[in-house]
Amino acid sequence: MAIIMGVDPGSRITGYGIIRAEGRTMEYLDSGCIRVGEKPMAERLQTIFHSLALLIGEYRPEEFAIEQVFMARNPDSALKLGQARGAAIVSAANSGLAVHEYSARQVKQAVVGTGGADKSQVQHMVQALLSLSRKPQADAADALAIALCHAHMNQSVLRVARTGGRVRSGRVRQP
Amino acid sequence: MAIIMGVDPGSRITGYGIIRAEGRTMEYLDSGCIRVGEKPMAERLQTIFHSLALLIGEYRPEEFAIEQVFMARNPDSALKLGQARGAAIVSAANSGLAVHEYSARQVKQAVVGTGGADKSQVQHMVQALLSLSRKPQADAADALAIALCHAHMNQSVLRVARTGGRVRSGRVRQP
Repeated sequence: MAIIMGVDPGSRITGYGIIRAEGRTMEYLDSGCIRVGEKPMAERLQTIFHSLALLIGEYRPEEFAIEQVFMARNPDSALKLGQARGAAIVSAANSGLAVHEYSARQVKQAVVGTGGADKSQVQHMVQALLSLSRKPQADAADALAIALCHAHMNQSVLRVARTGGRVRSGRVRQP
Repeated sequence: MAIIMGVDPGSRITGYGIIRAEGRTMEYLDSGCIRVGEKPMAERLQTIFHSLALLIGEYRPEEFAIEQVFMARNPDSALKLGQARGAAIVSAANSGLAVHEYSARQVKQAVVGTGGADKSQVQHMVQALLSLSRKPQADAADALAIALCHAHMNQSVLRVARTGGRVRSGRVRQP
């Protein structure tokens, strides 16, 4: 059993999702958006850091997962995204959580079954996998998908560990 | 009198410099580099966050200044730089410090007298202005230059405030 927090950081909206994973059973605990809109930059980052710290204090997740960014659109948006990621990662690390990263492709593969899935498919599968009564907001759905991906990878890792495979940086390598 | 901390963040080396400014007198207190080299990314950011928090606890600066990034080289390095900046800014904001940003041009203008100065000129002038017995390391010199720039801007701001000018985002506008 593990409580997993997934985070999808952004310079304006940071999505978060918290689930409890027990074997193959995934239970929804919470999700939402941290909206920092038009505040000065330092305040935005502080709000991301502080809001995540409060959520970590409330739900005490054992695992923290965040989307890996391979290709940002342009240097300016990459810098802003990097700042938001930095604030989120430091918030988790400061609470003693190990930070796991997954590519968008890995997340979609784990949740939808294909690395090329679009946002609405991710929302739909997150709703189905967690038996939610309505579709979560897009950023919250992405964050829940990251948490589900980590739960899935963790299971694969455990399975391989039992059979003697080697594990490195969230990827499973057969010996 | 104010203790000012300047920070020049980077994904591998984050320079810091701490000065005491009293009127036109600038006194060197400390400077150095936080080297995070080859650690995993989350550990790097955590080290930047934690090291700056320790320095803030030790020197209790009233002011925090950081270089504004206008043009990063490419999306990948912008993302990494953004993450380091995010960790540094959150560390300052978390300690209750307001974060002031200055462009590289403003920093060079304030310290060397010309916005087009090169790194060695900045090192030279930082050494001269703070009466240091040797040239500070390049990243530490940049951080000290940012602190000196803030001290200089603060003075200009105070001068204009006394004469009724309006101040906005570190820039001085005459009414």
